[in-house]
Amino acid sequence: MATTEFSLSCPFPIQDYPQVLMAHGGGGRLMQQLIGKMIAPAFSDTPLAQQHDASTFEVPAGKLAFTTDSFVVRPLFFPGGDIGSLAIHGTVNDLAMAGARPLYLSAAFIIEEGLPMETLWKIVTSMQQAAKACGVRIITGDTKVVDKGKGDGLFINTTGVGILKHAQTISPAQVQPGDVVLVNGDIGRHGMAVMAVREGLEFESAIESDSAPVADLVLELLEAGIQVHCLRDLTRGGLTSVLNEIAEAAGLTIGIEETLVPVREDVRAACEILGLDPLGVACEGRFAAFVQESDAERALQIMRAHPMGAGSVRIGQATGQRKARVLLKSAIGSQRILDVPSGEQLPRIC
Amino acid sequence: MATTEFSLSCPFPIQDYPQVLMAHGGGGRLMQQLIGKMIAPAFSDTPLAQQHDASTFEVPAGKLAFTTDSFVVRPLFFPGGDIGSLAIHGTVNDLAMAGARPLYLSAAFIIEEGLPMETLWKIVTSMQQAAKACGVRIITGDTKVVDKGKGDGLFINTTGVGILKHAQTISPAQVQPGDVVLVNGDIGRHGMAVMAVREGLEFESAIESDSAPVADLVLELLEAGIQVHCLRDLTRGGLTSVLNEIAEAAGLTIGIEETLVPVREDVRAACEILGLDPLGVACEGRFAAFVQESDAERALQIMRAHPMGAGSVRIGQATGQRKARVLLKSAIGSQRILDVPSGEQLPRIC
Repeated sequence: MATTEFSLSCPFPIQDYPQVLMAHGGGGRLMQQLIGKMIAPAFSDTPLAQQHDASTFEVPAGKLAFTTDSFVVRPLFFPGGDIGSLAIHGTVNDLAMAGARPLYLSAAFIIEEGLPMETLWKIVTSMQQAAKACGVRIITGDTKVVDKGKGDGLFINTTGVGILKHAQTISPAQVQPGDVVLVNGDIGRHGMAVMAVREGLEFESAIESDSAPVADLVLELLEAGIQVHCLRDLTRGGLTSVLNEIAEAAGLTIGIEETLVPVREDVRAACEILGLDPLGVACEGRFAAFVQESDAERALQIMRAHPMGAGSVRIGQATGQRKARVLLKSAIGSQRILDVPSGEQLPRIC
Repeated sequence: MATTEFSLSCPFPIQDYPQVLMAHGGGGRLMQQLIGKMIAPAFSDTPLAQQHDASTFEVPAGKLAFTTDSFVVRPLFFPGGDIGSLAIHGTVNDLAMAGARPLYLSAAFIIEEGLPMETLWKIVTSMQQAAKACGVRIITGDTKVVDKGKGDGLFINTTGVGILKHAQTISPAQVQPGDVVLVNGDIGRHGMAVMAVREGLEFESAIESDSAPVADLVLELLEAGIQVHCLRDLTRGGLTSVLNEIAEAAGLTIGIEETLVPVREDVRAACEILGLDPLGVACEGRFAAFVQESDAERALQIMRAHPMGAGSVRIGQATGQRKARVLLKSAIGSQRILDVPSGEQLPRIC
């Protein structure tokens, strides 16, 4: 995704308050001004509840999906995105992984005293643009300010509500022997985009995050009647964590071919410098889909025809072995167990 | 409310990890263990989505309410509550202020590296007990860990969904001349309970927070057919901010009698020591209800019969003056404008 363009003008007098003060979170006039003149207007195509404690919306009878995510990424801006667009994409994608159409989001800010007001405005603008592009509405929010040294610039929580319009049960336990594993593009770019900035790695061109919304693509699969048994976005812990969790929940061995997993050369190079396995690096616009084998080719065609799935490929298959593990077949044909690291490869990439 | 009793045993091996590590937020085995053995079991009467990106629930056709709040209170524990119970009550009360019955909550944790695991467990337990007492289910969650010095122990976001079963429009703009202002008890206790701990103030007995859920009480009013025009909980900025916001939205003068506003002696004394106006101090279990004058007496009776409203009183009335302001009549009969301070009286009390 392209970096957010900073075009909206801000009704809040940034020159008067170049930095966020403790009082901007205190419930007095300054907080009302910050919310009323910056945050609410940015989400103004959507009636962010300014004078209410809660917003309301109408739903038809049926099933809703509900998910929450806090974002603590450092730095706040990185090639291909920022904490604001990431906070929208992350929650939209979590709803999509339940097969839901994302509808409404909340946005809660924990701001460290001293954050440049301009930075906050850029991020709020970025959220507005990302929400618009995803077709979701931010309808309720919250702003807190913590003392300097007790936060890290900005943390954002987004919580989302979506609607399920299909009857399929999508969960790791639904995975069946023979199910084909598809991914919607090259992996590891988000994590390496963030790490490259943080570690000061220099490449010919910057690695851009893959941060993007995939709900549309997922809904196309479901509307086409593809038997999707499980969906998971490849965030913290990357492909490795996702496959292991699914193998465990399904009680099956999942076989993956290493040569089929798409990793860009710059991402691979950055991983080598930092001693990381690209399979364990987080993405923010990639997911794994477990689909019935007979549907796999048709699913791939649908995915490749969508802008968020142009690089979709088949990377492996759930086997009939009732042993929960992930087997990785290398280029030379050897097999090894792909295990989850105990800790983390990358701190604070989302 | 009584302080949470710490009775559940923790399936997570606290002795092995006495403090939260960065790796507990990294997406690997340690994070899975923390979520799987501490957070999910604590909410186990409710199927916190452990292997899913989003949880699902069924709703009838109709109107839902949606609200979000992050909690950054310092210290994490205070007389009468802690950040965990506060995070449940706060969001339950915000839903109630829209006239909604709270149903589902999300819980997202931003933990500072080094937080004692025992502290986290106590707070998670407290949330579980508070949620149970409120009749709400925590069905989805998120855990992030930030580096030592980049947070402040623990921040919690709770976002809630509730259902509206009545046809009344409840909002500041609905307030009519003649509407009576009721509050459900003495004010300012939460803010002063927190400040007393922070400032090391000593009283004969500790000031206990008023943190409590008021949704039940509000729903009783609505079910009894009381014409409730507006509801607001008296959180950040206290009664002063709430009345001013409502006066502004309604375009009316609201008259309050200072002698009718209940403030406990210890709260008044603590406010005097700190140079604070009790009317501007936050509560977390108190609200103002604007009700049609002809319903005021009946509303008071219903409120007083409820454990969360035993101390309910009438404190004033919206006048026919089309000037947005709050007039405070003192004991000796003089009147002054009750204005909102520009900043805040109390940082980080919720």
